[in-house]
Amino acid sequence: MAIAIDAMGGDDAPTSTVAGALIARRAGIDVTLVGDSAMLERELIKQGSEGALDIIHAPETVPMDEHAALSVRGNRRTSLWVGINSLKNGEIDAFLSVGNTGAAMATALMGLGRLPGIERPALGGLLPTSDGKQVMFLDIGANADARPSQLVQFAHLGSAYMRSVFNIQSPRIALLSIGSEETKGSNLVIETHKLLTVEKHLNFVGNVEAHDILSRGSAVGGVDVIVTDGFTGNMCIKLGEGILETLISSLRTAAEDSTRAKIGGLLLSPALQYTRDNLDFRKHGAVMLLGVQGPIFIGHGRSDSTAIASALTTADYAIKNNVALALDEEARIINSSKNQ
Amino acid sequence: MAIAIDAMGGDDAPTSTVAGALIARRAGIDVTLVGDSAMLERELIKQGSEGALDIIHAPETVPMDEHAALSVRGNRRTSLWVGINSLKNGEIDAFLSVGNTGAAMATALMGLGRLPGIERPALGGLLPTSDGKQVMFLDIGANADARPSQLVQFAHLGSAYMRSVFNIQSPRIALLSIGSEETKGSNLVIETHKLLTVEKHLNFVGNVEAHDILSRGSAVGGVDVIVTDGFTGNMCIKLGEGILETLISSLRTAAEDSTRAKIGGLLLSPALQYTRDNLDFRKHGAVMLLGVQGPIFIGHGRSDSTAIASALTTADYAIKNNVALALDEEARIINSSKNQ
Repeated sequence: MAIAIDAMGGDDAPTSTVAGALIARRAGIDVTLVGDSAMLERELIKQGSEGALDIIHAPETVPMDEHAALSVRGNRRTSLWVGINSLKNGEIDAFLSVGNTGAAMATALMGLGRLPGIERPALGGLLPTSDGKQVMFLDIGANADARPSQLVQFAHLGSAYMRSVFNIQSPRIALLSIGSEETKGSNLVIETHKLLTVEKHLNFVGNVEAHDILSRGSAVGGVDVIVTDGFTGNMCIKLGEGILETLISSLRTAAEDSTRAKIGGLLLSPALQYTRDNLDFRKHGAVMLLGVQGPIFIGHGRSDSTAIASALTTADYAIKNNVALALDEEARIINSSKNQ
Repeated sequence: MAIAIDAMGGDDAPTSTVAGALIARRAGIDVTLVGDSAMLERELIKQGSEGALDIIHAPETVPMDEHAALSVRGNRRTSLWVGINSLKNGEIDAFLSVGNTGAAMATALMGLGRLPGIERPALGGLLPTSDGKQVMFLDIGANADARPSQLVQFAHLGSAYMRSVFNIQSPRIALLSIGSEETKGSNLVIETHKLLTVEKHLNFVGNVEAHDILSRGSAVGGVDVIVTDGFTGNMCIKLGEGILETLISSLRTAAEDSTRAKIGGLLLSPALQYTRDNLDFRKHGAVMLLGVQGPIFIGHGRSDSTAIASALTTADYAIKNNVALALDEEARIINSSKNQ
């Protein structure tokens, strides 16, 4: 199974992308670079790994900047387009971008199309939970607005992911809301709750509240998938990042306040670092664009080489566990029940 | 200025409510208890403070449980109803409930009515920020769904609160979204952004993202009010609580993993506690139900006596700074511009 990475995308590309790809390669993952071949060959030499990775040539790059990224939309010479096209042609089995997320989603949708039965793709990410497992959280930002039928489709996509990748026979699905009762929440949530309750082929267990996300829905006996709209999902991820950063820096300040606390902070710092790493979503690999025809993964633009290697590992693990096939089959189920 | 507290509401009432009221009384706040007078007199004696607080008698209590609370809706013998009625009659200047939030909001709306020009009230809370200040965050859960015009009204209410209570001449208002650009966000956010941009008498500075809440919108130069719908606002508060709890318990586990870390954890524990207290929204007083005719404050049902004293302090500070007058005036401005 070969994964290609857009080696030109990301804040520190191609240095970090090539370094991350090399780490993944050494771990046995079949990685291919997509981008300017002359530049990437030079980068490989610079990192002491001449010829270590295959390269698919693409002469141009999608800029990270939002407006600039829009201007190259549809340009078939960019590494983003070439990579997605290689996926479409079957030259590679999955594609990872850590560049501009909006551009990656738009190009994937344009180049690959949606799975039948899926109105909108969703970004699904695995969140580390306090019980040492993970929960699939989606949508974390592919669509700012969603309809109830689309949230039901997200539930199916998340379910297929967890079933194939983690071998969970009947993944437990929850809906994110502001109360556990079915009457609580926005109109969107209340309508979606009704649809999920009667949906076949889904193990819907009810609502979870936001404070129960990191305990993996312990209030409802543990869940494998948490469904929400992209506005709320993205909000949660970003709030989590903000709180984590504030808390770490606040602890650091507190630890410098007295000699006693300073020594305590020094002794505890590996544990603090561990906690931070464990809760930092960015370090937990890539999110998957679920609902398009082909495995597309998206990593954080600020990914360093470790984060990129971790993203490649997530993608590799997913495709080796036949996530693409599972998603295809799930879409077929949705589509056939639609047409009944 | 007299504040009454529903002494019968809350998980540990009347023990915690009476204890909290006594702390506030010793700090010079004019507190009155509302509830079963025989029971409250006994509680005051038990706490060694016979006759220390005035009591407004009410024979019945609104249960904490959601369904049970519904069943007493409109019952004029409950401490909740009697307290709000006393506020309406001018016997007290503000009312605090730490009981069932839904019941308190419904009773306040029924008993006092909305301010002219305000379609829906909002729950506004002060969040402690990393610069040691606070930001007014609203709506944190009065309405799960909101229209753009209502979010604009929330901005006015938040602005009036910060202007009167913290003497900020022209409070800076931000809209919570998933991107700083005006084109980013849900339809609700995009439409609200347009309205806020042209709204008179409001100092709107643009969107803030969730990771910037605790830094008080530092990305846009600092803000005093952050506006969002009640679903998103409530979600943010609950996610914050969940992350904080997870992080603290994760740190505790990490600190027990090795002797080195254990000693570090012990030395650092006062600092950890400080950080926790500082970021725990519940310990930061009450939220205000903005947009009804009279100062209603709502505290967490799990409040202990310290939290209740802190809630009474927040309420006292707000009303002494004429928050009610400021909200009335702001509503008049909204209403007059509506009728133009």
